[in-house]
Amino acid sequence: MKNETVEIKKQFLEKVQSSSQRIYSVGSRSDIRVPFREVTQSDTVNENELEKNPPVTIYDTSGPFGDESLGLSISERVDIRKGISPVREKWIDERGDTVKLNSPTSVYSKEQNSTDSVSKFMFTERQFPRVAREKSNVTQLHYARNGVITPEMEFVAIRENLKRQELFQNAGFSEKKILNYLKKIGRYHEGESFGAKIPLEVTPEFVRNEIATGRAIIPNNINHPESEPMVIGRNFLVKVNANIGNSAVTSSIKEEVDKMIWAITWGADTIMDLSTGKRIHETREWIIRNSPVPVGTVPIYQALEKVNGKAEKLTWDLYKDTLIEQAEQGVDYFTIHAGVRLAYIPMTADRMTGIVSRGGSIMAMWCLAHHRESFLYEHFEEICEIMKAYDVSFSLGDGLRPGSIWDANDEAQFSELKTLGELTEIAWKHDVQVMIEGPGHVPMHMIKENMEKQLQYCKEAPFYTLGPLTTDIAPGYDHITSAIGAAQIGWYGTAMLCYVTPKEHLGLPNKDDVKTGIITYKIAAHAADLAKGHPYAQLRDNALSKARFDFRWHDQFSLSLDPTTAKSFHDETLPKENMKKAHFCSMCGPNFCSMKITQEVREFAKSKEVDLKQAIKIGMEEKAVEFKSLGSKIYSGSK
Amino acid sequence: MKNETVEIKKQFLEKVQSSSQRIYSVGSRSDIRVPFREVTQSDTVNENELEKNPPVTIYDTSGPFGDESLGLSISERVDIRKGISPVREKWIDERGDTVKLNSPTSVYSKEQNSTDSVSKFMFTERQFPRVAREKSNVTQLHYARNGVITPEMEFVAIRENLKRQELFQNAGFSEKKILNYLKKIGRYHEGESFGAKIPLEVTPEFVRNEIATGRAIIPNNINHPESEPMVIGRNFLVKVNANIGNSAVTSSIKEEVDKMIWAITWGADTIMDLSTGKRIHETREWIIRNSPVPVGTVPIYQALEKVNGKAEKLTWDLYKDTLIEQAEQGVDYFTIHAGVRLAYIPMTADRMTGIVSRGGSIMAMWCLAHHRESFLYEHFEEICEIMKAYDVSFSLGDGLRPGSIWDANDEAQFSELKTLGELTEIAWKHDVQVMIEGPGHVPMHMIKENMEKQLQYCKEAPFYTLGPLTTDIAPGYDHITSAIGAAQIGWYGTAMLCYVTPKEHLGLPNKDDVKTGIITYKIAAHAADLAKGHPYAQLRDNALSKARFDFRWHDQFSLSLDPTTAKSFHDETLPKENMKKAHFCSMCGPNFCSMKITQEVREFAKSKEVDLKQAIKIGMEEKAVEFKSLGSKIYSGSK
Repeated sequence: MKNETVEIKKQFLEKVQSSSQRIYSVGSRSDIRVPFREVTQSDTVNENELEKNPPVTIYDTSGPFGDESLGLSISERVDIRKGISPVREKWIDERGDTVKLNSPTSVYSKEQNSTDSVSKFMFTERQFPRVAREKSNVTQLHYARNGVITPEMEFVAIRENLKRQELFQNAGFSEKKILNYLKKIGRYHEGESFGAKIPLEVTPEFVRNEIATGRAIIPNNINHPESEPMVIGRNFLVKVNANIGNSAVTSSIKEEVDKMIWAITWGADTIMDLSTGKRIHETREWIIRNSPVPVGTVPIYQALEKVNGKAEKLTWDLYKDTLIEQAEQGVDYFTIHAGVRLAYIPMTADRMTGIVSRGGSIMAMWCLAHHRESFLYEHFEEICEIMKAYDVSFSLGDGLRPGSIWDANDEAQFSELKTLGELTEIAWKHDVQVMIEGPGHVPMHMIKENMEKQLQYCKEAPFYTLGPLTTDIAPGYDHITSAIGAAQIGWYGTAMLCYVTPKEHLGLPNKDDVKTGIITYKIAAHAADLAKGHPYAQLRDNALSKARFDFRWHDQFSLSLDPTTAKSFHDETLPKENMKKAHFCSMCGPNFCSMKITQEVREFAKSKEVDLKQAIKIGMEEKAVEFKSLGSKIYSGSK
Repeated sequence: MKNETVEIKKQFLEKVQSSSQRIYSVGSRSDIRVPFREVTQSDTVNENELEKNPPVTIYDTSGPFGDESLGLSISERVDIRKGISPVREKWIDERGDTVKLNSPTSVYSKEQNSTDSVSKFMFTERQFPRVAREKSNVTQLHYARNGVITPEMEFVAIRENLKRQELFQNAGFSEKKILNYLKKIGRYHEGESFGAKIPLEVTPEFVRNEIATGRAIIPNNINHPESEPMVIGRNFLVKVNANIGNSAVTSSIKEEVDKMIWAITWGADTIMDLSTGKRIHETREWIIRNSPVPVGTVPIYQALEKVNGKAEKLTWDLYKDTLIEQAEQGVDYFTIHAGVRLAYIPMTADRMTGIVSRGGSIMAMWCLAHHRESFLYEHFEEICEIMKAYDVSFSLGDGLRPGSIWDANDEAQFSELKTLGELTEIAWKHDVQVMIEGPGHVPMHMIKENMEKQLQYCKEAPFYTLGPLTTDIAPGYDHITSAIGAAQIGWYGTAMLCYVTPKEHLGLPNKDDVKTGIITYKIAAHAADLAKGHPYAQLRDNALSKARFDFRWHDQFSLSLDPTTAKSFHDETLPKENMKKAHFCSMCGPNFCSMKITQEVREFAKSKEVDLKQAIKIGMEEKAVEFKSLGSKIYSGSK
């Protein structure tokens, strides 16, 4: 563990120091400060001139932990015993639609507060939660529908823009070409990708409208003012969620906070705290107080702990108290498996792998034990009342998702999905934000049907899928089996992808696994953005491709998803600094690097282009003599 | 290096010892012995009975190295200084269409033989190559078109069948269901997947017909009698190629042979020797004499070495001598970039990353330097004459493939592809087997066009693609960026996928990288087989899914693509043997394993199914009391 912490710090520092720095874009008011990481590029060295390469702006999820101006080490930047700054506090205050309570509402929270828990003494300022004033609805959806652009919406608009227009202007190679390209492939205004329409410029009004229609959500509980707003919707960048949390194999609170920091360092857009062990409440408090990204949970896990793991002892009152407990701590979205209805359970009887959602199997057990309809389904309107008092978003859980290729797209799964669609409309009636969870395990040719049915049944509410895994025969590599499916479903329109680590089906992931899972899913999300014709995604790809072709090794590392790994792989065989300008790597060696040869070909052709084209036309063989002598000279330099 | 070798042996032994063993299926003659790995499964423990789980047959590329009956260690099984048995020798002899030469034909080979090379003394029996008798055509395509089913074709039919029918009969859960499933999704006889038609039973006649139409190839040079026949075509299992070979960073011959053994252990269907360093000829000799899988090369690499890396000094005569040299050593397929025509080179001028195929850039340089048409294009018919004298297959190289997302599907690329189509028809006129190489770097939404154009231009000759990578922003993870594209293009109909390792673009892969690359590509190939509705692929997935649901941990490991990694990941947190029967792993712990809860739900429901369904119908709440008391009992056992 100690070594892991040291390693985290080392990699974190390497990442932030790789010729990139934290910058902020300020919005219409000075407290709308949107963080980015800006990669400064070196010049391209052409024969007779230096060509400037503009800086590239990268979406940054690391919050104050990634702000080097606050200190060199993470512990200098943030005192996790105090929590990070509540950047949204003032916005929430100003709206005047909330009241601060004198004590938590939940019975369980009150008990917790009466104990000598560490968090009690640490987060004194945050002990008193907020709740909506009577008859107020504090959700972003409510404001959006009333035509109000909140600071959260403006923040998100700036964040999604990524200084795109500025980048286009600076990047001589891309602005015009990217627009032409997008037009060529039928995207950008004129067209769409499976119904998604990504604007060239993301305005606050565009964000408001996406929220108002329910096509996007901004998950940010009024009790999590530390969160930097982000948006989940298919007309924005595809997002990635990372699951953390301890299981029976216990881990310390500090370790879970470290995992959260680790996850956002590598680009997790949200995290889910899936803890099921001891001290769930306290662990969650520490995570939320330090998390700049939205935090999701599955409240039934904690509820089950409260009844010592006996599903049949769960009650609506106990579950409701848990919802309020967590809502007042600041959880931004709840996975609620309200679609697992009693009548659907027999549909899973002939499955290869039954019910593989933990929450789904717990609810199935409850329904059977009591032989009655799920209390989540029956009390759904009451749940909505709680959600809107804190602006907690629904993540309607797919308790009946397939757990194997064989079970994909079956009756149980799609019956539940239809129910989730009905519940979406009920939530929307209450102006509560909703996203829908999806599978799981699906072979490639059956993935599209999932997206199509989800859009249809759930009226375009954002889809949030786990993978899907496209085969079951590779335990140990399920980050890859699932990234194949995740990239595809992201392309088809899924708004957020829940990562899968290499340890899936085998054990609890460690920090390496968490990192591998996140990078793998950032790849899937970005590949989806590219396929959807996202102009920024193409711009970043172009920047890296050009750095590669120019043999600007440091820029290549800095622009990549994982600079540490890229650099260390390169340095394994060619560690010396002067090799960072070499026109080859050890893969092909100096004589066989195609890019190197191409550059020679290009320089050669460039200086002779007109002659060359004429020559091709009239077939003047004698020209070759001249080319040949010139060519020999070029090669002799390249040996 | 020494540690690596020890690690290889350890993992190899673990793999072969994981409750699986080498078996052989014998064909119509006793020397047609097709190797498989058979995984023996343990019984499912149901409440009152044991349920048998039939053995599962797995395609096995490891040749004699994977036959434990030959010895415990690899060195006991094969003396690599002597080479492996020439299993096809007799078949080639019997056809009587070849003659054994007294010395190699190639000038260069003669020189090599006059030196004191190690291989000269080792492989004495193989010093004398075969060549077609005058006016004979020894290709499998020639025989197929003449209606002859060769032993190679029969071997391949048995190999592709994988004892499928027997497996269906034994696997109670799958036969009927799989057929119903295939019918449901419109596959198997009634339908097709993007034009592919995978038969339920692969007969020798089916193989012959696929070869005769050019839709499939069996790459097996008459001078590589050690190779076990395998087929590449979209109506068969999707195959994977692994590249090995040293670069300027030199590696020893022994190391390259070890890499080959390592690659086939993990499932490489063919290997390409891309050596560009010293002792290319000798390294190749050692690899071929020990390789049970087809070996491909890019002859231009060696030709370039012969002119000290000066592309403009390449000549047709020198290249031709290299082709003959390698054909007489036994290379099974040649990558030849004959589609890089002079007129196409200017089309690459505005590309982001120019020409990224090594062979393509070399030929572009030659064309420009001499200002004339490529000698590969001009002498293509002569090349065909050489190919058919040894049954070397063409792998028509895509020298102008895109090297970045930006350059995908451009004029240069598709112009070359059209030319490859023309060359395919010329090769077929000579009864020479052909496959076509494909990209490269392609965003997801542009992948399908590649497959469609390839099928159209190249008249359904098998497609063999490198990836494609679906984004450029993740150096260090290009096995993943490309597996996403590879799985897709495999689904669309690509017959063989060339792996990409994590070191791509950064350095020469080591053994870990080779393994990671192969497993990643086996995943892509298998995911494609599943999506194509391949009945065997579904069967193997089902077997693993069922083992998972049954908590048969050892079976889960044995059935997986990488038993070593799956087991070690599991054992990281729960190493004890009694945990191999535990109904949970450390990921969720004992109380939160959904599969465990589901099994309880299922047993519960099973014993009460009729009652349950009735109860649902009439809503008899009183029933719940009984369920609840029963339920509590079940849970108490699960704590």
